Amino acid sequence: MPFVHHTPVRFAHVDAAGIVFYPRFFEMLNAAVEDWFAGLGRDFRSLHLDDRIGTPTVRLEADFLAPAMLGDVLAITLTPVKVGTSSCAYRFAFASGDTLCLKGEGVLVCMDLDAKRSRPWPEAIAASLRAALPSDLDNRMA
Amino acid sequence: MPFVHHTPVRFAHVDAAGIVFYPRFFEMLNAAVEDWFAGLGRDFRSLHLDDRIGTPTVRLEADFLAPAMLGDVLAITLTPVKVGTSSCAYRFAFASGDTLCLKGEGVLVCMDLDAKRSRPWPEAIAASLRAALPSDLDNRMA
Amino acid sequence: MPFVHHTPVRFAHVDAAGIVFYPRFFEMLNAAVEDWFAGLGRDFRSLHLDDRIGTPTVRLEADFLAPAMLGDVLAITLTPVKVGTSSCAYRFAFASGDTLCLKGEGVLVCMDLDAKRSRPWPEAIAASLRAALPSDLDNRMA
Amino acid sequence: MPFVHHTPVRFAHVDAAGIVFYPRFFEMLNAAVEDWFAGLGRDFRSLHLDDRIGTPTVRLEADFLAPAMLGDVLAITLTPVKVGTSSCAYRFAFASGDTLCLKGEGVLVCMDLDAKRSRPWPEAIAASLRAALPSDLDNRMA
Repeated sequence: MPFVHHTPVRFAHVDAAGIVFYPRFFEMLNAAVEDWFAGLGRDFRSLHLDDRIGTPTVRLEADFLAPAMLGDVLAITLTPVKVGTSSCAYRFAFASGDTLCLKGEGVLVCMDLDAKRSRPWPEAIAASLRAALPSDLDNRMA
Repeated sequence: MPFVHHTPVRFAHVDAAGIVFYPRFFEMLNAAVEDWFAGLGRDFRSLHLDDRIGTPTVRLEADFLAPAMLGDVLAITLTPVKVGTSSCAYRFAFASGDTLCLKGEGVLVCMDLDAKRSRPWPEAIAASLRAALPSDLDNRMA
Repeated sequence: MPFVHHTPVRFAHVDAAGIVFYPRFFEMLNAAVEDWFAGLGRDFRSLHLDDRIGTPTVRLEADFLAPAMLGDVLAITLTPVKVGTSSCAYRFAFASGDTLCLKGEGVLVCMDLDAKRSRPWPEAIAASLRAALPSDLDNRMA
Repeated sequence: MPFVHHTPVRFAHVDAAGIVFYPRFFEMLNAAVEDWFAGLGRDFRSLHLDDRIGTPTVRLEADFLAPAMLGDVLAITLTPVKVGTSSCAYRFAFASGDTLCLKGEGVLVCMDLDAKRSRPWPEAIAASLRAALPSDLDNRMA
């Protein structure tokens, strides 16, 4: 099941043309991923500070389809598409009303922050991510 | 009456010590001011793009009293303390639970974005700001 | 000929793990593109404000290969790989010493900021971009 | 002796009005402080990561006198005005050519990142900061 996060386009997000400066989309994306994990039962604070687990992004691709403007409210949809032992590929889409502004895919890796290397997902996270996989992935890159 | 805005401390806000990097507090402050004005009936989008009115900050002072950490939810309280023809001084405070993290004062100016000079507040905004002045301002800098 | 831009990893760029928070890489990338265009004879100020031309990114892909840390000095290399009538695809690579931290490809579009649609590159920019194409593009996605 | 740091106004710094969004001034200020400390012999990387010393800002005041625009090159001047056992007050000024855009004062505190409390400056830093105090401080708040 996809996770949906809503965020307004703030003054801090836009550039001289009044549209979102694209690196800000990725700050929004990261906030959406934070809330997604919190919804899976693991907030980033305890994950990073207590369990010393990070979730760095190792791959990202994005197509910017339409500008987003100051005052738009963006619906960011996240859908896992492949859950590995220590990684998770997910699709993302940013929509403002009926307009799709941005879509793409990212890959997170589960990282041991002290050992500074990848490690398996904690079982509870892996199970939650797998449970969120869509039943039909045939058109996952559409 | 003070305006209160809540914001979580995101991964994007913290530094290598795991606490909010102080320029990020001012991004949060600006978001709070945006929502304050929207609550007064003037969203930043129509204010900036339709009416070509900006509200730049011309003075700011802040005391950082306690660190805010990843995962804290900050309550940002805004209280106007002086409403002039084309300016507004306001107090702000950021609290995480019972801990006051940051307090200070800012001054906004109403600006004509095309003429690039200050202009009087639109009457409706001035009236709303004045209506929000606390009844007792004697201890406003306390 | 590739363009190389150097930037230090600042306190503002790193996260709670002490490594660059990935949206900050794209702020750095945008700064590198600014300096690249300035080196081609067109600074972003005159391009945006005088000529009302923007260069939004319409596609981006990136592989994050190694973390970059506070105090690293990153060499960002930009190489155009395809110059169209109103677009430019370019490769980028971020290296810290001998370590390749990040590589990817972006696509810029030349945009008329007033008409809000794409337009052909000004001829001088197109000529400069084409002149910077590497002579051998066979392995451009390597 | 004042320390001077130069920084261009980037696309990432400006808002919908084409002028620097004020929280970005504080990111620039922090970068200037980083280079100041590096010039005093202590880079932030070794200070934070090896010696586990932070330098959080505990007080800040700023007057925004003139807008800074995309493409401006800002000269940021830092001058210590009071060096305490574990704190340092400093003045800052941002100028674009002959135009003073921003001036203010900040207070840094030397912090033990593990004990999470203030600590005395390392002697070498204290000596360098004191050596940089201007000989005449009578008009330091002018």
